[in-house]
Amino acid sequence: MMTSANRNREPKALLFDVFGTVVDWRTSTINELRSYGQARGIDADWEAFADDWRGLYQPSMEAVRSGERGFVRLDDLHRESLRKLITKYEIPRPGEKDEDQLVTIWHRLRPWPDVPDGLFRLKKKFILGTLSNGNIGLMVRLARHSGLPWDAILGAEIAGDYKPQPQVYRATAQALNLDESECMLVAAHNGDLDAAAAVGYQTAFVARPTEYGPNQSQDRHATQSWTVVTDSFTGLADLLDCPRF
Amino acid sequence: MMTSANRNREPKALLFDVFGTVVDWRTSTINELRSYGQARGIDADWEAFADDWRGLYQPSMEAVRSGERGFVRLDDLHRESLRKLITKYEIPRPGEKDEDQLVTIWHRLRPWPDVPDGLFRLKKKFILGTLSNGNIGLMVRLARHSGLPWDAILGAEIAGDYKPQPQVYRATAQALNLDESECMLVAAHNGDLDAAAAVGYQTAFVARPTEYGPNQSQDRHATQSWTVVTDSFTGLADLLDCPRF
Repeated sequence: MMTSANRNREPKALLFDVFGTVVDWRTSTINELRSYGQARGIDADWEAFADDWRGLYQPSMEAVRSGERGFVRLDDLHRESLRKLITKYEIPRPGEKDEDQLVTIWHRLRPWPDVPDGLFRLKKKFILGTLSNGNIGLMVRLARHSGLPWDAILGAEIAGDYKPQPQVYRATAQALNLDESECMLVAAHNGDLDAAAAVGYQTAFVARPTEYGPNQSQDRHATQSWTVVTDSFTGLADLLDCPRF
Repeated sequence: MMTSANRNREPKALLFDVFGTVVDWRTSTINELRSYGQARGIDADWEAFADDWRGLYQPSMEAVRSGERGFVRLDDLHRESLRKLITKYEIPRPGEKDEDQLVTIWHRLRPWPDVPDGLFRLKKKFILGTLSNGNIGLMVRLARHSGLPWDAILGAEIAGDYKPQPQVYRATAQALNLDESECMLVAAHNGDLDAAAAVGYQTAFVARPTEYGPNQSQDRHATQSWTVVTDSFTGLADLLDCPRF
């Protein structure tokens, strides 16, 4: 899966897509939804519910990207989508506290197994930041929950728009006093890397072929010759010449 | 110096003033300026130079606060002030690389001795963020230089204005999904705490009586009954019931 690094000069900062690339959102949300259902005696197809919740992700951001509505944080978009699915799946409407517990499932996602070791090694050499559509409050709690050692939480909320709008990548580089060419986006999604490359970022594809479950069809492989291609964060640390400890 | 904690409910996040409260900017800048002068055979009163550089800090931000100019990052304000002082002190004008080295002295300030242990303890219990006038790129490099374990870099740059404008404290709380009353500003400056309290923050005064050198007259003591008053970050961890490890 790995190809040798092909780069003119080393990046100064690695910026990470988070949902899917750093954390396994699908397994985490299914597990928490199942626990929620069991504790309350609610029977539902929680796998389908989780996939539908994620399915509403892109459409919910589209209204912001198109300018139809002002910037709305992802926590609020997750809540709006949740309410739609509670109606669709005919689940008892949760009280305020239960609804908060459900919305903050996205604050408690678990990282892929290679992530802690990989980030630890990468952090010795590079500035590490998030370049996610997740809002700052969400990203901070996720990082504390799973011990993700970010130097800064950047991305959508500081840009006031959602990926793949070019401004999100540009604002993130600018916040770090860096030129886009000094930044590398790390992502499991070819489309995200495409948008980053278009504004001058270096690119690292990390394959996460089960992000969408066992029958995933999209993003199983790199579709272009990205700067670096690998299948784990420890593999990325190897390719970027970060010593093992 | 310590008083017992007087608070209704515990904060969820501690937000830190940085220059003077976390790092000893005066000793650090004097040392680096002296080294710079020695390496280049430049003789100057580097103590006075450092104090003058910091003296231009508040006036340089005032043009932004008053709306006379748009938001300009602190790194750029530091550069403008440096150029004025190079003229005033009749020092040879540095080349681009030397000027960058001087401006980034503010990226390499050293923390007060109690800071690493105190932050390590506080981080187990609270979200830790910066609420500084320093820009994100500056704060990230400072944190990496001195091992400051921030969960998020907030404050002036995300607010697009400078403290003590109320919007800076408000935007920081909002970015963390918190009410102002769930946030505590930690600062060595009574005026900063005053502005934070005015928008509903809890307040911790940490005395730094030599921040401005041996003859410091201002901010030697708490001037109001802040939520917590102490003289170190380890003292703050004690008062906020953070276990020792």
